[in-house]
Amino acid sequence: MSKTKIGPTTLIYPMPTVLVGAEVDEKPNFLAIAWAGVANSEPPMVSVALRPQRYTIKGIRQNQTFSVNVPSVDILKEADYCGVRSGAKVDKVAACNFKIFYGKVEKAPLIEQCPVNLECRVVQMLELGSHYLIIGRIEETHVSDDCLTDGQPDVDKIRPFIFVSPSRRYHAFGDVIAKAFSVGLELEK
Amino acid sequence: MSKTKIGPTTLIYPMPTVLVGAEVDEKPNFLAIAWAGVANSEPPMVSVALRPQRYTIKGIRQNQTFSVNVPSVDILKEADYCGVRSGAKVDKVAACNFKIFYGKVEKAPLIEQCPVNLECRVVQMLELGSHYLIIGRIEETHVSDDCLTDGQPDVDKIRPFIFVSPSRRYHAFGDVIAKAFSVGLELEK
Repeated sequence: MSKTKIGPTTLIYPMPTVLVGAEVDEKPNFLAIAWAGVANSEPPMVSVALRPQRYTIKGIRQNQTFSVNVPSVDILKEADYCGVRSGAKVDKVAACNFKIFYGKVEKAPLIEQCPVNLECRVVQMLELGSHYLIIGRIEETHVSDDCLTDGQPDVDKIRPFIFVSPSRRYHAFGDVIAKAFSVGLELEK
Repeated sequence: MSKTKIGPTTLIYPMPTVLVGAEVDEKPNFLAIAWAGVANSEPPMVSVALRPQRYTIKGIRQNQTFSVNVPSVDILKEADYCGVRSGAKVDKVAACNFKIFYGKVEKAPLIEQCPVNLECRVVQMLELGSHYLIIGRIEETHVSDDCLTDGQPDVDKIRPFIFVSPSRRYHAFGDVIAKAFSVGLELEK
């Protein structure tokens, strides 16, 4: 199998699209990003990478809190919109018709229409070059009731989507293909 | 829409499964993790979260280098195996029949069968609690020739998969549903 070097690039599959929320000058704003991941389990932490010039950063700096909202395909347009327009110029909450609610973390606005919402407090903010990598401790998780099965989050009801690079397209989730922490043991048979 | 609080959890969709590679005591080893993400674009950086007791950490500490390999559905079993067995006990390269190659970063072993390979140098290693969040600068990207279309990585040929929690299942990628940085602008019409 031959390989081609394409230079240093951030090529990982799959990448999410999440809506990072903050209150900027006392008003909720949301930014769509693909560069988010889990950073720690005990205590639960998430990392999000944002360019310093992003309007949302201002709110995160002001309050040291933010939210991570996982959109479903039902609000794909709204999620995409939050990645192309700036809160400095438009009221994204109004444009997207988002219903906002709050949990225990002050000034971490949550979107009702997103099936999964994480409330976060800033733990660290690393200046890595073009982006700040913001590590947040997850203080609470909210899941829409209609996305639970036996009290557990159900991905078939959540219906999240994937951001794909470099094609810059959104993909739906596909079928279940195997059980994790299990299918690999077939190699030992 | 009503919501249920399920406590602080690391609930993000989608999550990847990548194989983090390192040379431990001069021998290549790979660990499957779901907690990986992009951290920066200029220069390109990736973050991976590993528990300190993981065997792979030893090699990353020794060499300050590592690799990130994106598996395809063709080696789903092998990828899963690398998440359930420890390199302290088994030779995963032999068990998985991985063909290893190297690029410019010393002791960052790459898997030929993975369509995408990133060579990384450690930039920071944060102790966050249960996990180390390791930030690596991506020095080179390799893509299998048969996964390129017009010189660009093609997800339909790469055929990566998704790790889903809490169901602990792997899903395939689904259909393209929209164009990013574009479909959202329909809201302004």
